[in-house]
Amino acid sequence: MKTVKLIVVGFGTIGKGTLEVLRAKHRDLMEKQGCDVRVVAICEIDGTLVNGKGVNIDSVLKAAAAGKLRDHPDWKNMKSLQAIEEIEADIVLELTPGDIKTGEPGISHIKKALECGKHVVTSNKSPIALKFQELTALAEKKGLKLRYEATVGGAIPIINLYRDSLEINKVGSIYGILNGTSNYILTKMSEEDVSLETALKEAQELGIAERDPSYDINGTDTAVKLVILANSIMGKKISYKDISVKGIQDITPDAIELAGKHGFVIKLVGDVNGLEVSPRLVPLHHPLNVSGTLNAVMLDTDIAGTLTLIGHGAGKIQTASSVLADVIDIMKDMQDS
Amino acid sequence: MKTVKLIVVGFGTIGKGTLEVLRAKHRDLMEKQGCDVRVVAICEIDGTLVNGKGVNIDSVLKAAAAGKLRDHPDWKNMKSLQAIEEIEADIVLELTPGDIKTGEPGISHIKKALECGKHVVTSNKSPIALKFQELTALAEKKGLKLRYEATVGGAIPIINLYRDSLEINKVGSIYGILNGTSNYILTKMSEEDVSLETALKEAQELGIAERDPSYDINGTDTAVKLVILANSIMGKKISYKDISVKGIQDITPDAIELAGKHGFVIKLVGDVNGLEVSPRLVPLHHPLNVSGTLNAVMLDTDIAGTLTLIGHGAGKIQTASSVLADVIDIMKDMQDS
Repeated sequence: MKTVKLIVVGFGTIGKGTLEVLRAKHRDLMEKQGCDVRVVAICEIDGTLVNGKGVNIDSVLKAAAAGKLRDHPDWKNMKSLQAIEEIEADIVLELTPGDIKTGEPGISHIKKALECGKHVVTSNKSPIALKFQELTALAEKKGLKLRYEATVGGAIPIINLYRDSLEINKVGSIYGILNGTSNYILTKMSEEDVSLETALKEAQELGIAERDPSYDINGTDTAVKLVILANSIMGKKISYKDISVKGIQDITPDAIELAGKHGFVIKLVGDVNGLEVSPRLVPLHHPLNVSGTLNAVMLDTDIAGTLTLIGHGAGKIQTASSVLADVIDIMKDMQDS
Repeated sequence: MKTVKLIVVGFGTIGKGTLEVLRAKHRDLMEKQGCDVRVVAICEIDGTLVNGKGVNIDSVLKAAAAGKLRDHPDWKNMKSLQAIEEIEADIVLELTPGDIKTGEPGISHIKKALECGKHVVTSNKSPIALKFQELTALAEKKGLKLRYEATVGGAIPIINLYRDSLEINKVGSIYGILNGTSNYILTKMSEEDVSLETALKEAQELGIAERDPSYDINGTDTAVKLVILANSIMGKKISYKDISVKGIQDITPDAIELAGKHGFVIKLVGDVNGLEVSPRLVPLHHPLNVSGTLNAVMLDTDIAGTLTLIGHGAGKIQTASSVLADVIDIMKDMQDS
């Protein structure tokens, strides 16, 4: 049986979720894929858990839950870039949160991994949105894979769907509801006739919205994801700065009520061809009219017609499904070669 | 450049649609996939067009449109089973219409192709629904691929999506709106408050419903597709006879109106776990509430959560997208080996 070694960089929500799923599915992966997947390093901001034979995922998750990761016997005073360079592994999972202005530390992690001959799977939007051409070119030059399904639409496998099943199609346009927090707020405002502030407060209490939800509310998060879809599926070469962005901050209950009277809902829509993120009127019976934290992506294609995918745009376990789909895809190619 | 040779068996709507798309995308396939795809035979019920170097697709489509296929210089008095056995090719596209009671002639075509060392792509529901275990076992024994994306949901790449991107997930249930004709009729009845007979007549005039729409209306077509989804995605071993089937024939405008008053629509839903096809109440704001001829498939998974795909369930060009996605997938593996 082949052993596949992973370095996990970033041990926040998605990192922990990925490890939880790996723990639950380890036997499945062996039986179905013939692969023994081992996590040989987990990089935090101030050090790294290192175990060449594979860390004990259970003990790591328990230590993390107890806030005692630094007391774990595998903990070393090693920085992430050093770990990526020095530790023998097949795939680096870059799962740090991104800084949308700089893309760091994700960009440096991804470059280092590719330069050291390691495949990369990332859930980090910023590096892919900011440096798509450069990073994909580097991966190609090195004969390595750079996969980023989890950067857009959480558990919705839209990028892989296009690559694996729609390649013969030319995609003419992409529309998306790509931010669960803003969609939750708009849904609440519509269903319960409450103000944006009230809906946001509830979302924060439920853990759906972050303490600083600016990027969700003002459209930035949607724009970043739109750039990734445009470049990866439609072959565009656009950056975040090309997108005109308007958020939901000025939407009032009155506007939502008025839209409803005419058979519409207000949704924060990303539109690749319009290079625009903005609140738009969506007909009640339209596939993009999804409720709550759901995301939806609609592709207009020349052969398959219009396809819409609806699913969970976030959630640590759900997003891990996309991270691990990318890992499995790379593993399959490793076995073939 | 690698040449990939196809035998097209069945030259009805989907066969013609597939050739139209191949004509339009021939250069794309060469440039993107590095494959020169040639159709070396097209089998009709009473003979076969044969050209070892590849038929001229343009001349064949023109001859077919003029009803003069039998006058084409490549026409030979050769039966389909003989063509599948004797003509050198990589992939057989089995695109005949199926007889749901016997599965013929599709079953014989698929078996013959696999026995002769040829991969198979089919859009024919009946053989896959009736003989799933036997045919997939035969393909595996021979080290060949049997692909059938186009049998369910037309252009919706649900089967490949599961295989390529959701493999780590256990699918707990599948619900589907799998028949465009019945969904069109229910949508019309709901939106225009007309009887089933009126809606059906309009569907027939528009070419959406066939002259004998019994299998669409009585749920048989949905049940056949449900069996394919259950066996291929959930690993079930069920046959058509295990499904309890109730169609839309008794749905009245009154029932639809009453449902609407309570915030529901009536949809013909296939439910794998319930082993049932039946008209069900679906909430207005539910991803399965799709209009017109659209299809929708909803998967409940353990990791990715609930995913819904919405798209065109039929149409000759749309269905060709799924047929050719399977062809491309097989081509990729041929190049690797």
